[in-house]
Amino acid sequence: MAMAFSALLKRTSAIKSVIGGLQASRAFASVAVDSDLVSAASDVSLQRARSWDEGVSSKFATTPLSDIFKGKKVVIFGLPGAYTGVCSTQHVPSYKRNIDSFKRKGIDSVICVSVNDPYTINGWAEKLQAKEAIEFYGDFDGSFHKKLDLMIDLSAALLGPRSHRWSAYVDDGKIKALNIEKAPSEFQVSSGDVILNQI
Amino acid sequence: MAMAFSALLKRTSAIKSVIGGLQASRAFASVAVDSDLVSAASDVSLQRARSWDEGVSSKFATTPLSDIFKGKKVVIFGLPGAYTGVCSTQHVPSYKRNIDSFKRKGIDSVICVSVNDPYTINGWAEKLQAKEAIEFYGDFDGSFHKKLDLMIDLSAALLGPRSHRWSAYVDDGKIKALNIEKAPSEFQVSSGDVILNQI
Repeated sequence: MAMAFSALLKRTSAIKSVIGGLQASRAFASVAVDSDLVSAASDVSLQRARSWDEGVSSKFATTPLSDIFKGKKVVIFGLPGAYTGVCSTQHVPSYKRNIDSFKRKGIDSVICVSVNDPYTINGWAEKLQAKEAIEFYGDFDGSFHKKLDLMIDLSAALLGPRSHRWSAYVDDGKIKALNIEKAPSEFQVSSGDVILNQI
Repeated sequence: MAMAFSALLKRTSAIKSVIGGLQASRAFASVAVDSDLVSAASDVSLQRARSWDEGVSSKFATTPLSDIFKGKKVVIFGLPGAYTGVCSTQHVPSYKRNIDSFKRKGIDSVICVSVNDPYTINGWAEKLQAKEAIEFYGDFDGSFHKKLDLMIDLSAALLGPRSHRWSAYVDDGKIKALNIEKAPSEFQVSSGDVILNQI
């Protein structure tokens, strides 16, 4: 698996350098430690994971970033997609198993976000039995990750435009720690164990 | 649910008329009865539903339309998305329960296609326990449905660009019957029961 993915990543990094060139001329905000996440993406909303019927009942409501981050201590992590490998077997579980430690450190919410629609990410969260510990949100049109300059073209893996694998500790909207994997196949810096020690 | 969706569709049809205007100047092929589906989209491939690990093992292989349709009698249906309402509760089940009747009429394969990645549609197919009866394919970048002029913007339902709800009977690549719902929330003409009587 590692070899197949490294071949893929050679292809996607070629694609990405093209996209990166295009992005340089756009108004995407890059974030870093001390950035205010809510200000950087003030017009962006995420979509709380839910079933289709709950989506209809909610009139397809979305959640502004200020509701998620203002006045709260949040650990958030992003990944390339529901139903993909490292995300299912390592990334989500590393947050789920540390949930009590996060709570003891005063974290109000642990959030998983992905460029998926909220019904798909809900189906996946249920399959992983992770919905009680972690709040899942969709970023169905990628507008959140575009603002953060965290998009990557994963068409070579039959996924299309998705997000990098990353994590952040955010206190009242301010980024206090930020970890971005060099490639979405890697799982070196964005685990629950790493960020637990950064809080 | 019907009311909420009808309100949604008023919004999406406004979006769609804008998109429709844009599409008029593009080279999208519309299909109709007697069209040759393989010729209309000869450069398009679909992605067989599979787990991520199977995707890696397959080196993310895709399936050309000619492999799916040439020399075969195929019933194919498309829908707005894995994990959405009508698709899960009515559309897929109407094909699953008729699978023996399709086989008796000489149909080689019954295929479900959606603008989803192949791992998501695989997770959904497993949840619906429909993988034995029906072959599921992803159209992750919408290139198949764009060629058929069957795309619709469902951003108001937090889905983004997806496909209409439709069905077709295709014999050796030639479309023999084609049914497209007026709105993706409807389920009048694209069921398994309807197309069974068109073969």
